[in-house]
Formats: sequence, structure tokens, C-alpha cells
Amino acid sequence: MTELFTVVPPSEAFRTFTGAFEPLHEAETIQVRLAAGRVLARDVRAAEPLPGFTRATMDGYAVRSRDTVGASESSPAYLRLAGEVRMGVMALGRVEPGEAPRIHTGAMLPEGADAVVMMEETTLTGEDVEVLCPVAPGESVFKAGEDAAAGSVVLQAGKRLRAADIGALCALGVVQVEVACRPRIAVLSTGDEVVPPEAALLEGQIRDVNGQTVATLIADAGGLPVPGGIVRDDEAALEAALRAALAGADGLVLSAGSSVSSRDLTARVVERLGRPGILVHGVALWPGKPTVLAVCDGKPVVGLPGNPTSALVVAWRFVRPLVRYLAGERVAQDGFDAISVEAILTQNISSRTGREDYFPASLERADDGSLRATPIYAKSSGIVSLARADALVLVPLDHAGLPAGARVRVVEL
Amino acid sequence: MTELFTVVPPSEAFRTFTGAFEPLHEAETIQVRLAAGRVLARDVRAAEPLPGFTRATMDGYAVRSRDTVGASESSPAYLRLAGEVRMGVMALGRVEPGEAPRIHTGAMLPEGADAVVMMEETTLTGEDVEVLCPVAPGESVFKAGEDAAAGSVVLQAGKRLRAADIGALCALGVVQVEVACRPRIAVLSTGDEVVPPEAALLEGQIRDVNGQTVATLIADAGGLPVPGGIVRDDEAALEAALRAALAGADGLVLSAGSSVSSRDLTARVVERLGRPGILVHGVALWPGKPTVLAVCDGKPVVGLPGNPTSALVVAWRFVRPLVRYLAGERVAQDGFDAISVEAILTQNISSRTGREDYFPASLERADDGSLRATPIYAKSSGIVSLARADALVLVPLDHAGLPAGARVRVVEL
Repeated sequence: MTELFTVVPPSEAFRTFTGAFEPLHEAETIQVRLAAGRVLARDVRAAEPLPGFTRATMDGYAVRSRDTVGASESSPAYLRLAGEVRMGVMALGRVEPGEAPRIHTGAMLPEGADAVVMMEETTLTGEDVEVLCPVAPGESVFKAGEDAAAGSVVLQAGKRLRAADIGALCALGVVQVEVACRPRIAVLSTGDEVVPPEAALLEGQIRDVNGQTVATLIADAGGLPVPGGIVRDDEAALEAALRAALAGADGLVLSAGSSVSSRDLTARVVERLGRPGILVHGVALWPGKPTVLAVCDGKPVVGLPGNPTSALVVAWRFVRPLVRYLAGERVAQDGFDAISVEAILTQNISSRTGREDYFPASLERADDGSLRATPIYAKSSGIVSLARADALVLVPLDHAGLPAGARVRVVEL
Repeated sequence: MTELFTVVPPSEAFRTFTGAFEPLHEAETIQVRLAAGRVLARDVRAAEPLPGFTRATMDGYAVRSRDTVGASESSPAYLRLAGEVRMGVMALGRVEPGEAPRIHTGAMLPEGADAVVMMEETTLTGEDVEVLCPVAPGESVFKAGEDAAAGSVVLQAGKRLRAADIGALCALGVVQVEVACRPRIAVLSTGDEVVPPEAALLEGQIRDVNGQTVATLIADAGGLPVPGGIVRDDEAALEAALRAALAGADGLVLSAGSSVSSRDLTARVVERLGRPGILVHGVALWPGKPTVLAVCDGKPVVGLPGNPTSALVVAWRFVRPLVRYLAGERVAQDGFDAISVEAILTQNISSRTGREDYFPASLERADDGSLRATPIYAKSSGIVSLARADALVLVPLDHAGLPAGARVRVVEL
């Protein structure tokens, strides 16, 4: 029964933590088609302009815009149909004054032409193209280099690749890309009462939940969870297990047993794993106060509380951004995601000021399209009750609860 | 130059589409540790109560609550220290009146006891436990079956499994689970100007972007993209390719060439693939109007416009929810995700009423924590400019633009 610690605000805790170790800077080259969700290790530049040639963005006629000056329905500009630009090939020949070859969306604008007149604004009579309104230079065309200039940075190092980024790489002809290696995070559970999920329970035992929930969050954040199993609350065994796990990984997350003595044991052992050791012991977070953040010989170590709901909240708050930071992704200094979901609270929530609280809630989309969050009852020692929730409602540090009708930030489960 | 179609509102289009085919109802049994992101094929019930025994949720003493009635700092209840309940084993012996064994968080509450007094509310002198305040029955304990009653439905069929759900399954000792097979969606691109991403470009050619962006979105939604390559704008070749692709998959997404004639060709061929054929040709969506939704002999077929930004918007609006619907997930009738991100618009957006518009935007978190969306310039024929955006701002059907300061729904890219 020791566990005497000073609680630190979660945002400050995350800053202190990430200030004490470096991202991994290990990269690998992979196929672009497998790169979604990976973090770019270096800037990608356009080797060539994109598009590579000026293209029509409408079906119509390629024209010299000056030939259409003053055109109107009552007084059309008369141009001469000069063949058709075929798709996917070089636009042979030059558009001379008074000429208007037929062109399709996506085809190459021929030399001499500087605009496209949409089909709808023309009338074709034999070989005569009547243009019914003037077009400005550049109208209905996508200019060479307009999407990306040759040599320009298209995607920056540290970016997590999404569908649109994969598309940009394909457009540029980049089929291999250098991405950060997935951070390998060892995941261990401790506690004399904890047995593997497949075990038949003896009286007094519970099955390990945190090993799998934390691994799921790590994988989701782009990391590689390395399963380390369950360790007894024995000081020597625990130290040996943690040393071995940390040696084979880039970081370590362990969920302590739920008792104070088990947590004390964990903290004592973590403190011995390497320098500088424990940086934060206790955060102003509920559920999840007895959290340990440590750096041991350059590798981050997170000690989670044992209760499943607490462990998941702390893993969301610290482990997710930790994995992203390790991979070299730009992460907000306070550890929060840049993009958040907001909802309207349907009931009062009471909490204590000076503490960041997370309340399980169900979400529902109202008829007006807004999202409604209704807190649901769930003890932090449970997990099924948390699985019944859609999200966690955040009550910020400086709030003593939130009233019904308040706009709140929620974390999708 | 035909393409005469009636545009349909996107939500109505999605309802019509999903009304014309069934979810797959094919299931497979997999390890729970690999099941994150998969859709549950049948309800999971608790075979046993959870927790399986009543547990302490605090470190302290197990007591009979009636022994503490009227206790106070000035007049404590005096109980006798009666050993210690060990973690992870059956709590041997019964707590008799006046007894108070030491207990740790998570340990089994012994018979006779009905509550735990927190350590902080006691003083220990030799064998005497002084209890300084009364406890109610059930205080600081997590009752057997409180998280889940035996036989109760814990997770419902159609649910996409998240970390908390995986945890609930582990807690219940469920290590294998029946999930929907991933819907296999063939992805093809057409267009005479389109070549594979690895190709060196000849004049007038562009590289295929949509094949890869659409595959990324399909995988993200839980589907298995089946790459079908690029097909020339040749009617017989296209029909043969689409028939072969559809025969080997549960659905088909093809991106048409960008010209009207290429889109017409695609629609003609899709119409012949099976009954009932094309259900929607043209949606009130920008960018992405020339979209085809069809069902051919029970299999869904989506024809995307060729422009990369348009294709991605349409894939987000129709293909993502289509994959989820096929997997048996509960999907909103209008195809929108239940959970959405909102932001404050920093600039006016002008658009046309009667059309659902999506504008690329950058997102920034303001100092007050709110999200700000700033529209950025991006032509729908580009993709790099879209990759520079963080999200798409939705302008609903019934709005003619949105003013700066408006709260808008955004789609994360």
C-alpha cells in the first residue's frame, strides 16, 4: 500500500513523455498498393508535371479562344470542323485560326488551341461549327502541371497515406514508396488472478482482456503488437519478462494487476529497466489515474491500470498517439487527434474539475442530422458494458461536469 | 453524345440500390484476436455470468455491511482482522460477524461479506480494524453477473467488432467467432487514354488512379478488392471483361473513361450484364453526377465517373456503405455513416440547391478545440490537389451554398 504519486494533467504527461524519446527513423520500401495507412518516411516530389499535357475537361471543340470573341446565339462565331482528337494519343496537327477539331473529355488539347467550347454551346451544321458564346483562354481545360508542377513536393514525410494519397502516387507513376517501419510494441499483462482468454476459469480467476484490446488499438494506430502473454506478480519473473519483451520491441505496454500492490510492483520493476525511468506516475484522468509513463534506455514504456475500461481509455489517450509518434507521424503535442467527433449531450454529467473524464455513451443521429450522446452506466472494472457503448464523452480538465444540451467531444470506440 | 438521364438524390439512389439485392449471408469462423474490423455473423451470448464471482473494486477489508452501521471517525466500528484474501484463488472461509479480512482489488469477495471498506477509511491497530464510516451493501464490489448475465446477448449480429468488443469476447472466454466473409468487389478501370501506374506515359495517356483509390476504400470498409485491370473502350472486350470480373466476385465497381461516349458505352454494357440492370443513372451529386447504380442477377454494380476526385467522392458515398451492407452490417438507409465529424466553415461556399456537393477542405483545430474547415481549390480532374485536402465539406441537397461560420458536416479523406 504505497503508490504515493502526484497526478499530472494528461496533455502535460504526453508532452513530457514524448519529449524523452525519439521517433524510430527506420524505413522500408513497399508497393504503393499496400501502403494505405502507412506513414511516409520522406517527401515525395513530382518527377514530371501533372497532368503531363493540357487536357479537355468537357466534351466539345478545341478552339483558339480569340476566335470566339463576341460570339452569341444571335451572332455565332463560325468555325470549321477540323477532324477529331483521338483519346489517349498525341493530338496531331495544329489548330489554325478558324478551326475547331472535335475533342472529348480527357483528350490532349492540340497545339494552337487554348480552350474548349462545350458541345452544349455549339451547333454543328455539316462542317460548320457555330459557337454560341465566347470562351476565355484556359476555359474547360486542365493545364499541364496544374495538379502538380514538376519538382514540387506532392506528399510530405510524416503523412499517413489515405486513398487520395495513394491515388496521387499512382498518377505520378510512383509504384514503390518509402514508409516508416511499423513500431513493434510488446504487450504484457500481469496479475496473479489473470489467465488467458482460452482458459477454463478456476474460482477467483479472470481472463485477460487488456492484452487483446490494447493489441487491437496498437494495430489500428499502425503499430505491430508483439504478444508477451501474462506474467505473475513475482518481482524477478516480471523483471525478466519485461527485459526480454523490451529487447525485442521498440516499446512496451503492460497492464498491471488491479490491486495497489500489483501496481506498486510493476512500477518498481519498470523503474529498474533503464534510464531515465518513470517520468509520470499518476495522471489526472478518469478512469485511468494509476498510469505509468516511462522511458527506459530510449524506449517508451506505458503501464496501464488493470481494469479493462480504464486500460482502454489510457491506451486510447497515450498508446495510440505514442505509436504514431514513433512512426514519425505529426502528432499534436497534447496527444489528441487533430480531427474529433462532436455530439450534443442528452443528459447532465457530473464530474470533478481538474480531471479529464471519459464517460461511455451511446450515439444516435437525430432527424436534423446532429449526433446525440447519451451516457450509459458502465463500471471501469467491466468490459461488456463498455462494448455496449458507441463512444466515450470527454469532460475536459477544467470542467466540473457538463449540462444536458452541451456540445461535447466524443471518442469513437 | 447521348447520356440522357434523370438525376436522383443520392440518399434515394442508395435506398433504391440496396433495396434491389441482399446481403451475402456467408460466414466464416476465425480467431477473435484477428476479428477486429470484421462484422459479426450471429449474436454472441454470455455462456456464464461476468464477472463469474463477486470481486472487490477497491483495496481494503471485506465486511458484512451491517457491522459498519453508524461508524464514524469519532466512533469507529471495531472489527477483527481475519487473514487476507489471496488474489486469483477461491476466497476460503466465511466472514463471520465482526470479522474483516484484508482484500485487494479484483480478489473474490468471501462468503458472508457483502461490501468492501476502502483502506483509506480504516485504521489498523494490531489485529483491530477501525472502520471510520459506514458502507452500504454492495459498496466497492463488482457483483457476479453485473457486467453480463448468463445467457444474455453480449454482441449482436451485424456489429463491426472494435477493441472493446474483442475485449468482451476475451472476458467471456470466446476465442473463435463467426463473422461475415469479406465481400469480394471486382475493380476495373476503362478508357483508351488510361494506362497502369507503372507505365511510362506516351503523349495523351494518363495513369490509372481510380483502380487503386477505390480498392483502398473497399478494403477500408472491410471488403476484399479484386483487381480487374484496365479495359479499352471496346464494346465486346468490355462486356467480356465485366462478365468475367462479376462471375468471380460479389459485386463490381468500374470507373468509366472520362468522355461522354466512354460513359455511354459503359452504361450500355452494364445494362446487358443481368437483371434488373441499371436502377439509377445520374445522381444529384457534385462532383460525380454521371454515376451508374445497377444490380445484375443479384450482384451490385457501380459505375463511377472517370475523374479521380469525382470517383473518390462517389466511392465514399456509395461503395463504402455498399460493402458494409453486403457484409450484413447495419447501414443507414441513406448510406451515410451514423457517426460524422463536424467543423466550422471559415469561408463562404456557393453551390446549387437540389444537389449534394462535396468541397475539398483543410481542417485545423482552433485554440478553443473546435475544428475549422477551409475550402481549398481542387479541380475534379485532379488528384494531387485532393491529396492536399484533409476532408470534404458536405453541402446538403437543400442548401444553396453555406456561409462562413456555418457548422458543416465533413468527410475525412
